[in-house]
Amino acid sequence: MPDRTTRVSLRLDFGDTVRLGPGKVRLLELVGQQGSISAAARAMGMSYRHAWLLVDSLNQAFTEPVVMTRPGGKADRRAELTRFGREVIGRFNAMEVAARKAVACDLRALEGAIKADAAPPRMRDPEHVPS
Amino acid sequence: MPDRTTRVSLRLDFGDTVRLGPGKVRLLELVGQQGSISAAARAMGMSYRHAWLLVDSLNQAFTEPVVMTRPGGKADRRAELTRFGREVIGRFNAMEVAARKAVACDLRALEGAIKADAAPPRMRDPEHVPS
Repeated sequence: MPDRTTRVSLRLDFGDTVRLGPGKVRLLELVGQQGSISAAARAMGMSYRHAWLLVDSLNQAFTEPVVMTRPGGKADRRAELTRFGREVIGRFNAMEVAARKAVACDLRALEGAIKADAAPPRMRDPEHVPS
Repeated sequence: MPDRTTRVSLRLDFGDTVRLGPGKVRLLELVGQQGSISAAARAMGMSYRHAWLLVDSLNQAFTEPVVMTRPGGKADRRAELTRFGREVIGRFNAMEVAARKAVACDLRALEGAIKADAAPPRMRDPEHVPS
């Protein structure tokens, strides 16, 4: 059975340097749950380096850090959300809920126009490729 | 001067196969303005093939096409938005406006916590890469 629910996601671009979207917020949630950046990275199927850079970009973007790492050896270096990190997650999730409500009418209209058997885009060649 | 305005973008995932976001909507707008998929692709800095596949995925996703191509030689093959294509653009843009209004309060709180001099993420190495 194909999944027929519609997900509404938000992306926030603060100026042209700081971006916040569902991926970074999910990463923060996992850091909070797992207590480590490497475990959160594994849970998202991304490299530790990529996860670390995403967390660092948020720590640099805001006036307060979202994640604190505690000193320790390789094996037990822990990371945890700050109070502000939990606030960012809470606000972002509340924004997605509010946005979904606000777009409900147009969303229903578009959903009603989606083919019941909508399949992934066919990857055949275009008929015509201009030189 | 860095850009200090915040952009709120929406992404809609209809089930797990059909996705609509600012990129595809911008492409549709350009097809409407330019009258051709190849000109719209150039304006977005993407290949004709990539643009064609995006347009085709939308034409396949909905019960009505969003773009019609008119027969012609290589040089003058024209594409135009259908009435339904214009409706999709209009609804999506209205949804972004409504979403932005709905999230205004939380957005202001997050904007207030962005550093004035927020720079792009530093690309230095993480201190610690677990094995």
